[in-house]
This record gives sequence, C-alpha cells and structure tokens, in this order.
Amino acid sequence: MQKEFLEVKALYRNSEEYIDKTVKIAGWIRTSRISKSFGFMEVNDGSFFKNLQVVIDEKALDNFAQVSKLAISSSILVEGKLVAVDNAKNPIEIHASKIIVEGDSDSSYPLQKKKHTFEYLRTIAHLRPRSNTFSAVFRVRSVVAFALHKFFNERNFVYAHTPLITGSDTEGAGEMFRVTTLDMENPPLTKDGKVDYSKDFFGKEANLTVSGQLNGEIMALAFRNIYTFGPTFRAENSYTGRHASEFWMVEPEIVFADLEDNMDLAEDMIKYVINYVLEHCPEEMAFFNSFIDKGLLERLDNILNSNFKRITYTEAVDILIKSGQKFEYPVEWGCDLQTEHERYITEQVYNAPVFVTDYPKDIKAFYMRMNEDGKTVRAMDLLVPGVGEIIGGSQREERYDVLMNRIQELGLNEEEYWWYLELRKFGTATHSGFGLGFERIIMYLTGMSNIRDVIPFPRTPKNAEF
Amino acid sequence: MQKEFLEVKALYRNSEEYIDKTVKIAGWIRTSRISKSFGFMEVNDGSFFKNLQVVIDEKALDNFAQVSKLAISSSILVEGKLVAVDNAKNPIEIHASKIIVEGDSDSSYPLQKKKHTFEYLRTIAHLRPRSNTFSAVFRVRSVVAFALHKFFNERNFVYAHTPLITGSDTEGAGEMFRVTTLDMENPPLTKDGKVDYSKDFFGKEANLTVSGQLNGEIMALAFRNIYTFGPTFRAENSYTGRHASEFWMVEPEIVFADLEDNMDLAEDMIKYVINYVLEHCPEEMAFFNSFIDKGLLERLDNILNSNFKRITYTEAVDILIKSGQKFEYPVEWGCDLQTEHERYITEQVYNAPVFVTDYPKDIKAFYMRMNEDGKTVRAMDLLVPGVGEIIGGSQREERYDVLMNRIQELGLNEEEYWWYLELRKFGTATHSGFGLGFERIIMYLTGMSNIRDVIPFPRTPKNAEF
Repeated sequence: MQKEFLEVKALYRNSEEYIDKTVKIAGWIRTSRISKSFGFMEVNDGSFFKNLQVVIDEKALDNFAQVSKLAISSSILVEGKLVAVDNAKNPIEIHASKIIVEGDSDSSYPLQKKKHTFEYLRTIAHLRPRSNTFSAVFRVRSVVAFALHKFFNERNFVYAHTPLITGSDTEGAGEMFRVTTLDMENPPLTKDGKVDYSKDFFGKEANLTVSGQLNGEIMALAFRNIYTFGPTFRAENSYTGRHASEFWMVEPEIVFADLEDNMDLAEDMIKYVINYVLEHCPEEMAFFNSFIDKGLLERLDNILNSNFKRITYTEAVDILIKSGQKFEYPVEWGCDLQTEHERYITEQVYNAPVFVTDYPKDIKAFYMRMNEDGKTVRAMDLLVPGVGEIIGGSQREERYDVLMNRIQELGLNEEEYWWYLELRKFGTATHSGFGLGFERIIMYLTGMSNIRDVIPFPRTPKNAEF
Repeated sequence: MQKEFLEVKALYRNSEEYIDKTVKIAGWIRTSRISKSFGFMEVNDGSFFKNLQVVIDEKALDNFAQVSKLAISSSILVEGKLVAVDNAKNPIEIHASKIIVEGDSDSSYPLQKKKHTFEYLRTIAHLRPRSNTFSAVFRVRSVVAFALHKFFNERNFVYAHTPLITGSDTEGAGEMFRVTTLDMENPPLTKDGKVDYSKDFFGKEANLTVSGQLNGEIMALAFRNIYTFGPTFRAENSYTGRHASEFWMVEPEIVFADLEDNMDLAEDMIKYVINYVLEHCPEEMAFFNSFIDKGLLERLDNILNSNFKRITYTEAVDILIKSGQKFEYPVEWGCDLQTEHERYITEQVYNAPVFVTDYPKDIKAFYMRMNEDGKTVRAMDLLVPGVGEIIGGSQREERYDVLMNRIQELGLNEEEYWWYLELRKFGTATHSGFGLGFERIIMYLTGMSNIRDVIPFPRTPKNAEF
C-alpha cells in the first residue's frame, strides 16, 4: 500500500511534476484550523521536515464532519489535487477530495501545540520525534551518520566492527559496565571467597568497551585505512549535559600516516560533514539557526572557510599564561587544559578551529608516540569555537621497545597487551588515528546544548527508560 | 606522509595513468622469492585484495642484501617504476629503485604461507585480517554495510540509533546479559534479601538489548521509514557455527505499509546488496567462488534473476506433508518450521527464495498483527537456498484493543509496554518491519560457514579474547 502514498518531500522537491494532479499522501495532523464548513490542516508524513497544508471543504468531502473533529496527531490518508499557492513559505497545498482516518487520537495527546520544555519532552521520548525540534535533530543525526560513512567510503576506508563486550580494560579510559549472566544473589565463589568469574558467560570478567581503538589498530595494520563507528559506554556518574552512559564514536585509524596526516583527515572530515548537512538538510539547519542557536549558520560557515590552526601544547600554555586572562584553573606547563582554556584559544585567540599537539606524556594515554624530548607525546586535540575539544587523537607508538617500556613504567599488565605488542613485532608501521564523539558533532551542528536531546533514547545515571 | 604512497588499488584500477612512471607504495611483504642477486616480492598494502609484485635487483638497490633477508610480514616503503607485464593475473609490477624498511619481522610470524585451519586463525585474530580469506571477508563485510546504508539512504529512510542498554526485557526474544556496576561481592540487598537494583547504575535492572524493533517503531511512527543497524546480544549457550553472543542487526520499519510492502522491501534490499557486492568486490567474490564455496556466484546470480515466491505457512505445511519426504522433525500444522523444512521448500520445491507468511500466532511474537481467522498472524520469514531463514518480520498489530488483549493473554506486564501501547492511541497506523542478521547475509554472500569467521573479533560462550 505504501507506494500509493507519495512522500511529502517529493511533492516539495519536485512540485512541478505534481501540480494540478491528483495525489495521495498519508500522515499525521500537526495542527488544524477548522471553521464550520472549511478548514486547513497541517499534515506531516515523516518524510520531510515541513508539513503539507491540506485544505478541507464540506462541499468536497463526504466525511467533513468526522475529519473536522480529528484531534492533533491523528493519522489520515488523503487524496486530493496538489495546488500551487502564492506563498513563499508554503508554496503548495492539497485540496482534499477524500480522507480516510487511519488512526485517531484525542485531547490527552501529550504533545500539544504549546511550547514544552526539553526536560518534559524527554519524559515522552516515544512522541518527541514528532515535534519540530526533534524531527530536525534526529534527521540531521541520520544524515550526518550517512555523511561519515560516505566520506570514509569515498576514501577506500574499511568499516571495521570492533567488539562491544571486552574481556579486558585495556585502554583504562574510564569506568566500565560489567556484563554478566551470573546469579547476582548467589554468585559462584572461588576458594578465597571472591566471585568466580571463570564460571561467568565468557569465562572471565567482561565489560562494555570504552573505545574500539586497539582493535581498530589491528584492522588498520591489515587494511591501511579503517574506521569504526559504533556504540561506546562510560559508567561515570556524570550528570552534565555533555555526558551520556551510551554514545556513538567514530574512530578512524590510518597507516603509513603520521600526525600531520591525521590532522588533515580530521579537518577534511569536519568540513565534509558540515557541507553535507548544509546541502542535504537546509530546512532543518534554517530551523536551528532561527530557534535554537542564532549564530549557528555563521559559525559553521566560518569553519568551512578557515584553515584549521596547528599549535603545540607548549605554545598554547605560553599564550594562556601571557594572556593575562583570569582563569578559574590556573595554567602551568604540565596541566591538563580545561574547557575555559580551550575556548579561550579557539575563540579569543584564533576564532577558528585549532589543533593542539604534543601534550605532556603524563596527561595522555600509554599508546601515544613518544617525542624525542622524552617529555611529550604526539597527541592532538581539535578545539572548535563554541565547544572546546571535539576530537582527540594521536600518532601511535609503533616501536616495540618504547611501547613496552611505557607499559611497564605505568604498571600496566603486559600480558593483557600481548597482541597489541605483537602488532609492533610483525611489520610495525607508522600509524595514527583519532576519536570523534558522534553526539558532540551533532550538538555542534544543531546548536542543541544537552546530549540527552541528540540521542533518541538516552542512557544516563538512573535513567534507562524507553 | 601517507599521500606520497599511492594505493595499490589505484595502481590496478587506473594503471594506464601510472605505467612507466615512478611511483611510491607502502605495504607488507606477503611472499618473497629471492635468488642471489634478483627477486620478487608480493606486497599487499591493505587497500586492495590483490598484491603488487615488487621486483628487486642487486644492481638497482643499494640495500639489496638487507631487503632480500626480510621476513614475511615486514613493512616496506617502495619507490620504483610501474611496469606493464604480459600476465593476465598480474598485469603490473614495480621495479624497485629504493626500498626503506619500515618495520621488520621474523620467522616466528604465525601467519606463514602454509595453509592454516580457520580454527587456528581464530587464535590469531590480530593477524588473520592479513590473510587472503579474511582480508576478503572483512572487506566484503565493510562494503555490504555501506551498501545497506546506501540502499536505505536512497529511499529516504532515517537511520535510527536505538539503545543497547535496556531497562526491560520487552521483546522476550532470548536470554539477556545483565549490565551492572554493583559490587558483585557485596551487592546491596533489599529488606527481603534480594539484590537491590534500585541502587544499580540505572536505578533498576538493566540488560543488553536483543532487538531495536520496539524503539524502531517509535521512530517509524514519526519518520515514516526508518532503519536501525547496530549490535545486538544473546546470552545463549549455543556453540553452533551460526550463533554469536554479539552480532549486528538491520531492522527497517515502515509506516502506511503492510506485509506486501515489507516483502517488496526485503526483496529489493537483498538484490541491491548482491548487485552492489558483485560490482564493488569482484576480486573477493571470485576468490570465494574458487576457494570457499564453488557454487557461490551461480547461486547469487540465481537469486538476482528470481522473483521471490510468496506462500502461506499453511500452504508450506501442506507441501511438506504431501512431499512424502522423511524429516527428522515431523510436520503438522502449528509446529515451528525447522531448517530441514525451510531448506526443502526453498531448495527442492522452488529453487528460489521464498517468503512464508501468516504463521500460527502461538509460535510468533505478541506484536504481530492478528489475522481475521484469529489463529494466524501477519508474519513473514524469508527462506533462501543454502541457508534457510535469513529474514524474519511482520506487519505489526496497530489496533490498541487487539494488542492489549494479546499482552494480557500472554501474561506480559502491560505497564512495561505503556509507551508501546500509546503509539496505538495517538495516531496509530498500519506498519511493518523485519530484521536481517547482518552476519547471516555476510555468510550467505561469502560462503563462509562459521559466524566466528565473519566477525573480526567474535564473542561466543567462554570467549571474549582480543
């Protein structure tokens, strides 16, 4: 039956083809203004951000009385003539000759036309995708996901599915969720009274991954260029608007490639995605610019026209110290940069995206490539105006001995890393990669300020509803 | 640095552009045959299934002695002239003028040229993507993933990310993994001595999802057409070659669409993916056809040229009973079809893919639409030659009362389904969807017979290595 019903998107995009013809659509009533014998209904069919106006007239509709009483959110099948109207905002409308009520609704529908807070809308996550804001956000999310796949596919990257359940906390990047099938009331115990994980489903402790990177390196050292794109987890009790317990990450990994290649790739990717979303979601982006974040389009345009700056951490610290600016967290060489510092650099100093490179080894992960100074590693963070850090990456330590020293120095369990070390024994190669928090880029592109509002069904501490 | 090194794929695909020119490549030695002053090395750079032959000659290379001793899997940077050769299989080769050793290797490299069993290769999952078979499998996996995204994107489907951590076992489709941050040694207890999950991370019991469908329906009833594509989990102690604990699923959901639309979509999708992989991975597919599954290309071609048959479950049971065939599991109306029955129908009776529809309600899920007979539901399974079931789906019950009755009849907890029921209260609509096990289609397209060999790092009972 679906083929009968044209998509509203097609009617807008190719209206010449359909004007003055009889068409059928199917959708949900978003608003209606009905007088005694005549009325207008805005119908959204989900295929497009914009509604299509349906004109109903007692003279033309057998069931005018029934239709005129329909509550908002009712679904209807409409047949009628598509008519061109002299209205820049809504250049087409349907004059209905037949309407079938598919599913009615009533006044208890929680998403009435009045303005709701985002907090309230989170409690009706099963309905909020039908609102203007969330239909725009989740469509942009989908379009950006496709843009990323397309970007990497055009460059011959292999899409690698890395596992979510992991037998080891190898990256040590954060608190993890345990995955288990043991009876929590009566777990099997070892002789010394500890939980006996050898009896658990995987024969050992298992957790949800915090990063696919280490597995991604395996794949890159076979395929040259790969990327992962999948869910990632953090069991952190953060109640901020920037942290979720389950989120998606994009992690490219490139071989015979150094940090400069890595930065080039990140810059190309960000610009590609911005261009793609501006081209494919003009209605949604205009909506965000008007109602969510007034400077959005200008900010994105600015990014497209910038050459991303590249400075070292040491230079960044110098700039911050010499700035005379009062920061909440004082700056000295060796400290981690806080959001206030990052934003000062990218917004006040450069007003452009900035790569900061070569961080002190003590504030970065064990696998980053040691520089000749013995103090810094070949890391990079990309800072963007309005947000701060959006990408973190590095050139990886490809030298077996240096990596082994670092693992021992940090007291990591080298047996856990046996295969990671072997990658450095059998044809090691210069390689680099980075991670992009997918929700971060969606927030950046839409102006939405809470991560709970860019994930259809967010998971956060004390919340796994829907 | 990466831009200096052309991809071997580009050299093969656009060889006219490069022949007789000096080019640089970077890759790993797969094989080498070296005599005293002259030799051939097959180099693979990961960008392409095929190796490129590098010819080394003492007269042309300063470090011939060093290069000639390199072990298999060493990585090298090669500069030399690309030369056309009169050899159908390897029409181009490089005559090296300079070779830099990037990373050496030694004779302990576990992936020597001799033939290894797939079982053994699973124990070196960090190296097996460098073998012919697995480089082909994982590239096809990547290409098929992209083909699926492209297929749905071309049809204006929204890609919906449904959550992996779920607060309810709403589908009841199988055993689940618990996700917890409780101290397993000393979990908090309620007054009556049970584990107090209100103290757990999400404030209640949480598990890994077995399907994104119910959430997918939310998104479909806002966007008309959506699909999910993400990981899914089953905590089943199955040691078969067809079951993994973590696997990827594709689940489209379409609105204003009945089971016929659903079958059309499934058929279009399968044919699209087959065409895409044949067009984009000809080398890999020829390899599978020669070394993994001799009838593969013919079988796929047969699918492309078939109209998928559509029969009801009742017809299928009739055919099986009348066949006179001895089955291990006897057939009668009401029984679940076993793989032997499915394969008989798709292979012996039709020699084409077959949709079987309208199964008895008692062997299908609660959310499938009840037929007027009160005995069967609007389900569909797609059976394909060589495998049996590859897709399962249904038209969904969109009628509030019928769905509520079914939930109560089955003793399900209706409070858990509050939002799922509300979708039927506020503008319900005819809708349908299906699930495709991503690994199943990869096995089908490659001829690989064990699911552990189509997932880079498989998770199965007692196994979460790498």
